[in-house]
Amino acid sequence: MKPNVAAARDALSHLEIDDKEVSVRSKSRDFFWYSPVLKERLDHVVGDFVVAPKTEAEVIEVLKTCYAHDVPVTTRGAGTGNYGQAMPLEGGCILHLKNMAAVKEIHPGRVIVEPGCLLKDLDAACIEQSGQEIRMYSSTWATATIGGFIAGGSGGVGSCTWGSLRDLGNIIRLRVVTMEEEPRILEFTGEALARVSHAYGTNGIITEIEMPLAPAYDWVEMFVAYDDFTPAMELAEAVANEDGILIKLATVFEAPIAHAYFQRVKPHVEEGTHMVGLMVAPHSMDGFLTLLARMGGTLIYRSDDNDWERTPGPVFEYGWNHTTLRALKVEPSITYLQVRYGYPQHKELIGKMRAEFSPEVLQHLEVLREQGKVMFAGLSLVKFTTEERLDEIIRMHEEAGAMIFNPHRYTLEEGGRQTVDDRQLAFKREADPKGLLNPGKMIAWDDPNWAFDRMYAYPKMQAAE
Amino acid sequence: MKPNVAAARDALSHLEIDDKEVSVRSKSRDFFWYSPVLKERLDHVVGDFVVAPKTEAEVIEVLKTCYAHDVPVTTRGAGTGNYGQAMPLEGGCILHLKNMAAVKEIHPGRVIVEPGCLLKDLDAACIEQSGQEIRMYSSTWATATIGGFIAGGSGGVGSCTWGSLRDLGNIIRLRVVTMEEEPRILEFTGEALARVSHAYGTNGIITEIEMPLAPAYDWVEMFVAYDDFTPAMELAEAVANEDGILIKLATVFEAPIAHAYFQRVKPHVEEGTHMVGLMVAPHSMDGFLTLLARMGGTLIYRSDDNDWERTPGPVFEYGWNHTTLRALKVEPSITYLQVRYGYPQHKELIGKMRAEFSPEVLQHLEVLREQGKVMFAGLSLVKFTTEERLDEIIRMHEEAGAMIFNPHRYTLEEGGRQTVDDRQLAFKREADPKGLLNPGKMIAWDDPNWAFDRMYAYPKMQAAE
Repeated sequence: MKPNVAAARDALSHLEIDDKEVSVRSKSRDFFWYSPVLKERLDHVVGDFVVAPKTEAEVIEVLKTCYAHDVPVTTRGAGTGNYGQAMPLEGGCILHLKNMAAVKEIHPGRVIVEPGCLLKDLDAACIEQSGQEIRMYSSTWATATIGGFIAGGSGGVGSCTWGSLRDLGNIIRLRVVTMEEEPRILEFTGEALARVSHAYGTNGIITEIEMPLAPAYDWVEMFVAYDDFTPAMELAEAVANEDGILIKLATVFEAPIAHAYFQRVKPHVEEGTHMVGLMVAPHSMDGFLTLLARMGGTLIYRSDDNDWERTPGPVFEYGWNHTTLRALKVEPSITYLQVRYGYPQHKELIGKMRAEFSPEVLQHLEVLREQGKVMFAGLSLVKFTTEERLDEIIRMHEEAGAMIFNPHRYTLEEGGRQTVDDRQLAFKREADPKGLLNPGKMIAWDDPNWAFDRMYAYPKMQAAE
Repeated sequence: MKPNVAAARDALSHLEIDDKEVSVRSKSRDFFWYSPVLKERLDHVVGDFVVAPKTEAEVIEVLKTCYAHDVPVTTRGAGTGNYGQAMPLEGGCILHLKNMAAVKEIHPGRVIVEPGCLLKDLDAACIEQSGQEIRMYSSTWATATIGGFIAGGSGGVGSCTWGSLRDLGNIIRLRVVTMEEEPRILEFTGEALARVSHAYGTNGIITEIEMPLAPAYDWVEMFVAYDDFTPAMELAEAVANEDGILIKLATVFEAPIAHAYFQRVKPHVEEGTHMVGLMVAPHSMDGFLTLLARMGGTLIYRSDDNDWERTPGPVFEYGWNHTTLRALKVEPSITYLQVRYGYPQHKELIGKMRAEFSPEVLQHLEVLREQGKVMFAGLSLVKFTTEERLDEIIRMHEEAGAMIFNPHRYTLEEGGRQTVDDRQLAFKREADPKGLLNPGKMIAWDDPNWAFDRMYAYPKMQAAE
């Protein structure tokens, strides 16, 4: 079963193929370099050629051809993921979905779209045609695709109100092509959605997506400053618990994140400023300002009324993983954790972790709804020293009761709950019998008895040169 | 300070006046008769004349004139309240707002409307012009006014998502006219809203309302049947805790409510059927049906797809206080309680009350969000025997930790938390110095030292003939 890459490439040469070395290398990468651990492991990874189908029929042709020639296929949207999701560990074909970007239908409450559509283009179409927008998006909204968000993301801006992508109702339908001798087209709804969402394209290729929509508003974007951390955290929690105040983002930045890493914010804060970033619906502003007056923060920026010489741009581009990006641009040794501070211990846990680790680990919190409760996701900033210390920090979080989704791993399991997802594995058996889709990303496929006692190293990974 | 009703009536005779005995009597009443206690106390209450101003200027004229002649003014919308809110205990002028019903402006996320607009007319205008609807409404949507809902209501259909009217953001602005020698016009937002919302018109007359809007959907209305009570309650709670499933109503009916009192539902259920009534957004139906399959109820009715010979009409007209209405039409001895089962003890408390009182008291639960948590409001059906037994049932609920908002009382305090609302009292001192607005409804005004040890009896209430 040795891959015959040249034969596959030739058989697909009537499609849009890219095999220029520089651009294949660039299209073989995502934002894995946020993690020094992944940077060391994956920096050399490169595919053999890129194919960009224009239709589902062409997707089928690519899969069928690669199946025939035993060529691995790694699918990518814009490559804005952070875990090497879209990186071809064994080389082979990179299936680039940029040409499948049509917004097909917009209805009240839902949209049907192709996977390669950029989140911002999807929103623009929905707003223009219907005054609606997607419920949630990653902070890479301007550059990421809807397909990549579903296959590689879990939530983001909007999750403070709508929960996570995995929650019932946040994806309506996925159309999926299998990697078989004769690829099949399947339509997934309900429980079946979990087979392929957040599966990194390891068990099928999403060719059409139906997503719920929410009304689009001219969100008022704000920064609120506090001298202390706890009241900042409490404002973010309180605004999310106000059922009558509609929000799209509530982010907490421990000092000195705002001063040290947010250049346009820096002139307006002190080193000791703890900051909350918010997006509030305009018709909820009276309620929000009433709450703010009760809780005593200082509103230092609002997008609809400010005198900042240089405005900060979208506030959501300071939240989620854009916080990490801004920090490591200033301080290259910064990396991050992904923590779940579950209700009702969330604030207590955060206090403990802060007492233990600040400033080596700085709290960056995102309000998240989980099973109807307001809690926090932490995308803590970590001053990286060694892998051993990073692992120790992670272990101490876990021992304290904070769940870690390790962003320094490239497999589904290690970046998730360190357990096998039987639904995804079972579907991979059915839909990708040769194991050609995004190889090395699902441990359960490669090594069912893996004990998660150390970092998984895919045995068939390309050797670094 | 003896009222000169005739002088006031004459001075207002150029306005729309109604002083025909039958219709004045009818316009002096609300749905107080849901309570046998109130029925006995208030049945004889009648005003002297009804005036229906067409403009805010006419409202001012009425208030100024009645102030000059010391005539009490009791304001009413459609009179669909249940606590005698709109009943003129001392007689005098009934200020009927039916002619002030204009929908003035509709914007994304908000509407500006006059108080006499029917909820259904408001929704119709918002839907037609903008595809939006109000966030919440009473089950009397078809007949009640927005002003009456704000002045006399607390929440309703939609509160499972948006919380209560009192929550920040659920009322944006109220314009209020005072009852002084020279009435003033005030605009209230933020903290000031609490002065006059849910104040029964005791301290000012609302002449303009700004409310938030939500997107209007073709809600799928459903009934789900269970053989046991607990799973029915758990479905209602679970669907409300699914952040990705958008709902407008989740109601639980203990057996045999559905069979005994819902005539069009009766052929489809058994006496032992516990039922859940739901309104779910159409684009959330896949998620909802997935949840339902997990939780195992039987979907016996959905509004968009059913073969019922006689359809039940709007499902929300089975919930909130329409449940009581339907029950007492069949069984006149039925009355009700209003209970707050607060998170996280809600289910345990409900279980206790059920064990203690069923079937004398049958559980009718409405899912409600309070401070970000899903909990239950109970509008329990009570087989009324005596006032003493009713008081005992209430006391036992309170002793168990379930808060009661007593619907068998006509004062703000007794129907609320049995405490004085200082904001409302302070504003009444300023805005109604003669105490002429809806007299007898605010104990704090009449008797600041009242101990709440027995039912308050307004000393100046009209004597029964």
